[in-house]
Amino acid sequence: MKNNYKVNSKLALLFVIAFTYVGSSQNTNQEQIKKLYDVALTEGAGYNWLNYLSNQIGGRLSGSIQAQQAVNYTKSQLDSLGVDKVWLQPVMVPKWVRGTPEFAYYETSPGATTNVAICALGGSVPTPQQGIKANIIEVDGIEQLAILGKDKISGKIVFFNKPMDATQIDTFTAYSNCVDQRYAGAEEASKYGALGVIVRSLNLRLDDYPHTGSMGYGEQPESERIPAAAISTNGAELLSTSLKLNPNINFYFKQNCKQFSDVESFNVIAEIRGTQNPEEVIVVGGHLDSWDLGDGSHDDGAGCVQSMEVLNLFKKTGYKPKHTIRVVLFMNEENGLRGGNKYAEVANANNEKHIFALESDSGGFTPRGFTIDSSDKNFEKILTWKNLFEPYLIHSFEKGFSGADIGPLKQEGLVLAGLRPDSQRYFDHHHAENDTFEHVNRRELQLGAASMASLVYLVDKYGF
Amino acid sequence: MKNNYKVNSKLALLFVIAFTYVGSSQNTNQEQIKKLYDVALTEGAGYNWLNYLSNQIGGRLSGSIQAQQAVNYTKSQLDSLGVDKVWLQPVMVPKWVRGTPEFAYYETSPGATTNVAICALGGSVPTPQQGIKANIIEVDGIEQLAILGKDKISGKIVFFNKPMDATQIDTFTAYSNCVDQRYAGAEEASKYGALGVIVRSLNLRLDDYPHTGSMGYGEQPESERIPAAAISTNGAELLSTSLKLNPNINFYFKQNCKQFSDVESFNVIAEIRGTQNPEEVIVVGGHLDSWDLGDGSHDDGAGCVQSMEVLNLFKKTGYKPKHTIRVVLFMNEENGLRGGNKYAEVANANNEKHIFALESDSGGFTPRGFTIDSSDKNFEKILTWKNLFEPYLIHSFEKGFSGADIGPLKQEGLVLAGLRPDSQRYFDHHHAENDTFEHVNRRELQLGAASMASLVYLVDKYGF
Repeated sequence: MKNNYKVNSKLALLFVIAFTYVGSSQNTNQEQIKKLYDVALTEGAGYNWLNYLSNQIGGRLSGSIQAQQAVNYTKSQLDSLGVDKVWLQPVMVPKWVRGTPEFAYYETSPGATTNVAICALGGSVPTPQQGIKANIIEVDGIEQLAILGKDKISGKIVFFNKPMDATQIDTFTAYSNCVDQRYAGAEEASKYGALGVIVRSLNLRLDDYPHTGSMGYGEQPESERIPAAAISTNGAELLSTSLKLNPNINFYFKQNCKQFSDVESFNVIAEIRGTQNPEEVIVVGGHLDSWDLGDGSHDDGAGCVQSMEVLNLFKKTGYKPKHTIRVVLFMNEENGLRGGNKYAEVANANNEKHIFALESDSGGFTPRGFTIDSSDKNFEKILTWKNLFEPYLIHSFEKGFSGADIGPLKQEGLVLAGLRPDSQRYFDHHHAENDTFEHVNRRELQLGAASMASLVYLVDKYGF
Repeated sequence: MKNNYKVNSKLALLFVIAFTYVGSSQNTNQEQIKKLYDVALTEGAGYNWLNYLSNQIGGRLSGSIQAQQAVNYTKSQLDSLGVDKVWLQPVMVPKWVRGTPEFAYYETSPGATTNVAICALGGSVPTPQQGIKANIIEVDGIEQLAILGKDKISGKIVFFNKPMDATQIDTFTAYSNCVDQRYAGAEEASKYGALGVIVRSLNLRLDDYPHTGSMGYGEQPESERIPAAAISTNGAELLSTSLKLNPNINFYFKQNCKQFSDVESFNVIAEIRGTQNPEEVIVVGGHLDSWDLGDGSHDDGAGCVQSMEVLNLFKKTGYKPKHTIRVVLFMNEENGLRGGNKYAEVANANNEKHIFALESDSGGFTPRGFTIDSSDKNFEKILTWKNLFEPYLIHSFEKGFSGADIGPLKQEGLVLAGLRPDSQRYFDHHHAENDTFEHVNRRELQLGAASMASLVYLVDKYGF
């Protein structure tokens, strides 16, 4: 009995130690995560950084003065954080310039014109100097071009009017389902002899803002390229209604955008060196370039300052990471992805080992969770941390797309993730004149930063 | 063997039937709920109703012309839905009127004045016609009055400057923790001889909007009542900083608000009679009155149109409820709760049986879940439906407060619930001039309505 008692008591002691260890580790996590959220909500710098980026600099299209100002500003702010290393990584980027404001109207009969709000799509060729005026024909997506054929399209302007599907709860799904008409509409329509394309803005709301965005011509020779512009959703509805009443409508538009030679720009990078595994890198980032119409607050000023905030929160809470934590502000996500490609190219050339990359590029709205691009095993591991996020109303951990800029890093074993904020309002602002600072809420932005810092903390602590 | 086989085959058949039944019931629920969301997002009327309430009528303080216009408008819209019964339930409500715009400044030395934005708290007495000018003393909440005592407070204006706690993730918790200074600050400070009170606006953001809200004097005789006003958060910060530099500051404010005799108003009620249990009532509602400074879009125009939308969605999807579904637009939640009390009084007098009451009064933001005030057993039952809400990103089902207007209905067996939207931006707008229509997003509003309709559908189908 005595012996048995001793054994039991030893087992009990072990059990108590084990339990205390697990319990205190859980407590430590809860405490550290609470610190990250508390500091983000009370002393976070992200909102002020975004204020500067948005209101002192503004839209930061690749190759522009503003993009360079954003490089300088974010580097100086990262320098001031007292992290271990801050540097600029050179990368050649495209330089496309919008030129003077675009102009468009449609004409139901000679002289009976209605002006509509348009903007050139990024990368589009200009119209001839006097503009283009031609019959316009409406299609509900690229597939319809083949059905109509050259006979009905040749010599006309094609009006792509497939709307985003309002019944998709995740608005990014609705976006993905019709972004092809914006990206490839011009290239496809030109194959049928179209003279230009007008694309419905990718916006779930009816309003007067045209939304730009990237488009491409593939391998098309320059002589075959036709100009492409976005029309506001209100403009698209109006035009569509008019076409139902009178299919014989002329559309006029004029834009003098221009593609210049590539210019040098930079990814902005800063890191805290790991205390135990400095050669293993965790990346957190967003893209520093934006479209030119608004000030790029949601897309993706928010993601940049949230990423910078991760380092700031670690410094402010005194957390010393085991792995190297690196923030990367990628240049040229919008119209080239040159920064993302360059970063991966250099990382590979240097044989750097990345274990985790997290991107924020879905707006500065209330965070709802993360999408994870990883093996099942690593995904399951992340799911074991889910309860730590519940006090912060972060519920959604799903497998899925992470982010464009970190995509080129993808390889076996690397876990990629994306912050998933509430998506309902994102496309009201995306790539439009109203993607501006006053539409970002400080708390929502900072909650996103704290959520990112918390996930990075857990990855740093437990590895993969 | 043969017999055995037969028995097994019968069991198997039963199993298949049972399984099919459960499976198809689950499918039916999924299908009906999807229909509710689809229709809400594509054809919902709520946003247009809110546009009218906000932009054609505006702030709807109890007893005002606008409140009566809102009664007439919502009744006419409910009439047009083709439900079984629409009626007005008379209720006497208080009538408090703000008067001419309030005015305030503080004076660091004679002639050195700084204007600050204030508004009278709802229910406050006016200042004397010439205003009040006195030394101002800052306190960090009601508890500090007793510590300072009569000596330090008498003859002064008390400045309640306890801020909302930014680290609370649920902003309603932060609100609850300091709303006492607004509601009871004047009554408490007057006990120490204060001449008036200035209360920091219950706003997590720093801006220039003063936020009104109800306050009371308890049983205090009229002669002892002192005036109370809210100051914007920017104003509060400025004043507090100035007081740190110079504790001897005079504050001046003037307001000529007035309490009139009670007037008659109405709860607006409409119902679809149940096909199987018409005598059992499910209530869904919000409050039709609002404060006078903004147009009451979030508080609580949103809750009203979402409640109306529940009936609309049932009609549009052809769902015929087993129980009676009743929408109640309560009058006078803000400064009296007379509508909520009257509705419960009449329901009790008529021996009506209510099985469920759901309120939306937390803004028209993206819905995140529900709080439930019920027995454990009924709460567990609701939790079994949680998976049906996941496709719509509704994750949070917690026990908690339901809503003020349905509170008086509370009794054994009745399940009360509140819609819980994202709360981060709510107090940026709450009771202030900027609670306006442009700050409501159509999709967010309609998702809330669909979530409410889905929960009502499940309660109707399975009962409690």
